[in-house]
Amino acid sequence: MEPRTVEASRSILVKWMGPTDANSAGFVHGGTVMKLCDEVAGLAAIRHCRLRVVTAAMDRMTFLLPIHVGELLTLKASVNAAWRTSLEVGVRVEAEDPRTGDVRHTNTAYLTMVALDEHGRPAPVPPLASSGAEEERREREAQLRRSNRLAEREEIRRRRERAGEEA
Amino acid sequence: MEPRTVEASRSILVKWMGPTDANSAGFVHGGTVMKLCDEVAGLAAIRHCRLRVVTAAMDRMTFLLPIHVGELLTLKASVNAAWRTSLEVGVRVEAEDPRTGDVRHTNTAYLTMVALDEHGRPAPVPPLASSGAEEERREREAQLRRSNRLAEREEIRRRRERAGEEA
Amino acid sequence: MEPRTVEASRSILVKWMGPTDANSAGFVHGGTVMKLCDEVAGLAAIRHCRLRVVTAAMDRMTFLLPIHVGELLTLKASVNAAWRTSLEVGVRVEAEDPRTGDVRHTNTAYLTMVALDEHGRPAPVPPLASSGAEEERREREAQLRRSNRLAEREEIRRRRERAGEEA
Amino acid sequence: MEPRTVEASRSILVKWMGPTDANSAGFVHGGTVMKLCDEVAGLAAIRHCRLRVVTAAMDRMTFLLPIHVGELLTLKASVNAAWRTSLEVGVRVEAEDPRTGDVRHTNTAYLTMVALDEHGRPAPVPPLASSGAEEERREREAQLRRSNRLAEREEIRRRRERAGEEA
Amino acid sequence: MEPRTVEASRSILVKWMGPTDANSAGFVHGGTVMKLCDEVAGLAAIRHCRLRVVTAAMDRMTFLLPIHVGELLTLKASVNAAWRTSLEVGVRVEAEDPRTGDVRHTNTAYLTMVALDEHGRPAPVPPLASSGAEEERREREAQLRRSNRLAEREEIRRRRERAGEEA
Amino acid sequence: MEPRTVEASRSILVKWMGPTDANSAGFVHGGTVMKLCDEVAGLAAIRHCRLRVVTAAMDRMTFLLPIHVGELLTLKASVNAAWRTSLEVGVRVEAEDPRTGDVRHTNTAYLTMVALDEHGRPAPVPPLASSGAEEERREREAQLRRSNRLAEREEIRRRRERAGEEA
Repeated sequence: MEPRTVEASRSILVKWMGPTDANSAGFVHGGTVMKLCDEVAGLAAIRHCRLRVVTAAMDRMTFLLPIHVGELLTLKASVNAAWRTSLEVGVRVEAEDPRTGDVRHTNTAYLTMVALDEHGRPAPVPPLASSGAEEERREREAQLRRSNRLAEREEIRRRRERAGEEA
Repeated sequence: MEPRTVEASRSILVKWMGPTDANSAGFVHGGTVMKLCDEVAGLAAIRHCRLRVVTAAMDRMTFLLPIHVGELLTLKASVNAAWRTSLEVGVRVEAEDPRTGDVRHTNTAYLTMVALDEHGRPAPVPPLASSGAEEERREREAQLRRSNRLAEREEIRRRRERAGEEA
Repeated sequence: MEPRTVEASRSILVKWMGPTDANSAGFVHGGTVMKLCDEVAGLAAIRHCRLRVVTAAMDRMTFLLPIHVGELLTLKASVNAAWRTSLEVGVRVEAEDPRTGDVRHTNTAYLTMVALDEHGRPAPVPPLASSGAEEERREREAQLRRSNRLAEREEIRRRRERAGEEA
Repeated sequence: MEPRTVEASRSILVKWMGPTDANSAGFVHGGTVMKLCDEVAGLAAIRHCRLRVVTAAMDRMTFLLPIHVGELLTLKASVNAAWRTSLEVGVRVEAEDPRTGDVRHTNTAYLTMVALDEHGRPAPVPPLASSGAEEERREREAQLRRSNRLAEREEIRRRRERAGEEA
Repeated sequence: MEPRTVEASRSILVKWMGPTDANSAGFVHGGTVMKLCDEVAGLAAIRHCRLRVVTAAMDRMTFLLPIHVGELLTLKASVNAAWRTSLEVGVRVEAEDPRTGDVRHTNTAYLTMVALDEHGRPAPVPPLASSGAEEERREREAQLRRSNRLAEREEIRRRRERAGEEA
Repeated sequence: MEPRTVEASRSILVKWMGPTDANSAGFVHGGTVMKLCDEVAGLAAIRHCRLRVVTAAMDRMTFLLPIHVGELLTLKASVNAAWRTSLEVGVRVEAEDPRTGDVRHTNTAYLTMVALDEHGRPAPVPPLASSGAEEERREREAQLRRSNRLAEREEIRRRRERAGEEA
């Protein structure tokens, strides 16, 4: 399969936060942001794979600053790394007060998406053609997160075995 | 502050998946499930702290099996560990086909919630009184995830420094 | 058809009330609660019949106490009585303030559901195997409501006939 | 207080049923119709009382015929009877297929609404000035439903006492 | 094709404005009103044509007075003119405060709808049988708007040509 | 007041069309697109004026091509002209199929927005600093639309006067 550049699948969603996105104190729900992160990551993955995709994991999503009703949410997604049938998409969330123009970085999320063929089985995805220092750094960090994830799962499995406990 | 048991804050949400929760193929969006996980984790955290809480991080959420429109989603949350002003809540998601009664474990999620005082500043949370082998195992695993998270952040920071790159 | 126990179809829905469930004064709409009652009654009926069901009537639903945004609504449904192609489902609604843990009984509703076969025609439903004093009492009360409903309909029909009025 | 005519508070809501109002088979949920009945009954009650109102009970709501996505729902509400601080509102629901112009009577509902003063306490409502045979018949039938409701409640209370059971 | 009267397709939608229809200051969004105008215009067009229709243009919609949460919105649509495969529908929007009964004319909109056959291609629509001075005036004004629209498009096209600019 | 450039207030919204945005045939409602146009125009106007704004008119909105569920809607708004207390915002809507990357121009809309001071009265808006041939052309065309609008209103008023008709 032809490698595809990071640029080719870069995706963006922009949504104005309304009362239904927030609690009664006017703070946007974490769940609202998670849902939009899932949406924009799916968009980037579809563009990279040209296939239907499903979310396999949300790995580390941090909430740095609160978001308010009336602010503009911009979600930028790009593919960080591609493996055989899955890929990691990084999402950066920014909130802007449109009256003042102030922009704040509010969230970062990393999602693993799996491509599916027409029978719903995992399908091979195009390799990623990273270029430049930043894209290569992102690819290495995605690899590190993946290794840590697998190591953590293994560590927990071993601990449970030792203790004779079930999951 | 008085320690509180895991039992005291155990929480549950049960929702029937409708067409607005899914894509046009009838599969429930990952984002829908994330949003409900955030909701039920917030519920458990409020019950533990008796304070307003915000989501600080969603740490590892896996999607094991697809969920369909017409299925019943049950989300069970319990506090795994409590630190000074934050706590980890574990969420287990199960989907059931109400016609057959078949239940499948579809997701697991771990969220870090922070308690806030009336001025919106982080506030101390009651210690967790874990009891029994399973609750103690969950507490140790929450501690492991936290250590790994801090170590990963440190590792990425060091790598970037070495490379003279900016975040 | 094999009789089925009340326990086998007992159903529960749990939902956190948000701003879209309420009027601007923060009180949850009666209509929101009715809709959820219909949902949980349908769930119990599907579990009892293992068939598609439709709502035939909502018979007596009382609103005892107001419910507020931010409260947790728990709806518990169980089959009270089963007739040839229909059944009565009782729903008990409780509201809880998650900060204080106070629970209030806010509503009771009785719904008649009809089972449908694959052509959309009324289909026989399994008999109900009530057991114990409470379940038997509920069954008798369902029977009383049904008799009253039929008698009231007859009384109104007779009055209108006497008066030569049309419905 | 000045009596008010039935005409003065007659209310109507008209809504086009969309995909979010229905199940995946295209049938409109009973709960959707209940919610709109509550809305239009509240509207008629506000117009009669010129006060805030709450739903006290939904008494008998029948579902005669299924409603489909794409149909137009018309809900007509009028005050049937007024007591000291409450009133009964009758709602007639009709569904129309806008392509053929066919109209079907799909539901009837009777709701009891209570008027509230600015402190949220029950407030006196204007008497109803029924006029003509039909309005007077509706008022008598509302009275009958109210008597039956009170008698049924009493009957169930007595039965439970005899059996030494708790509610 | 048989001409159809204006009366035969006259349509109405009535909706109670809730918190999700408004901004946080309690003013109903212009977009909410536009969406309902599109809905009621589609309804009138379907009734006139007995065919599926799509919106071709929204031509001039004015917002005269603000609408508030808690008000009742009534949208009245009637066909003003019919051409070969399209028609103009006029919509009048009124807002009412149900406590005082005050009604205000808040919006007027003119939409052009196109009828489609079963293959999604423009289909002939029945002529309009206007009758009476008001209906004939509306038809002439619709014709004027159409001429102006075509003239404006032509004027802009000519100006751009002269300037050698692209659209 | 300091003039502001077109660039300074250029705004964008990007939304993925889901089942709730469309009819049951999978076509996105005209009303959905109108609502988003109103939203993005409001955003551009707020950025230009740094004040609260309301929609005064939607002037000419055309629907060139149908939009489908699953497509990505991008709405680009820019201020075309500024008068004393109002401004015209032009919106260009594009739909993209994310699997193929095909982008289609589906709609154009022109909205007049009015700025409000803290008492809700029309407030002066900053002049527009158009620069370059395209921005100047857009400003002239906005002026033409405004003149046509006023002339059409006058023409209709005169006709009605001549005929002794009321509006």
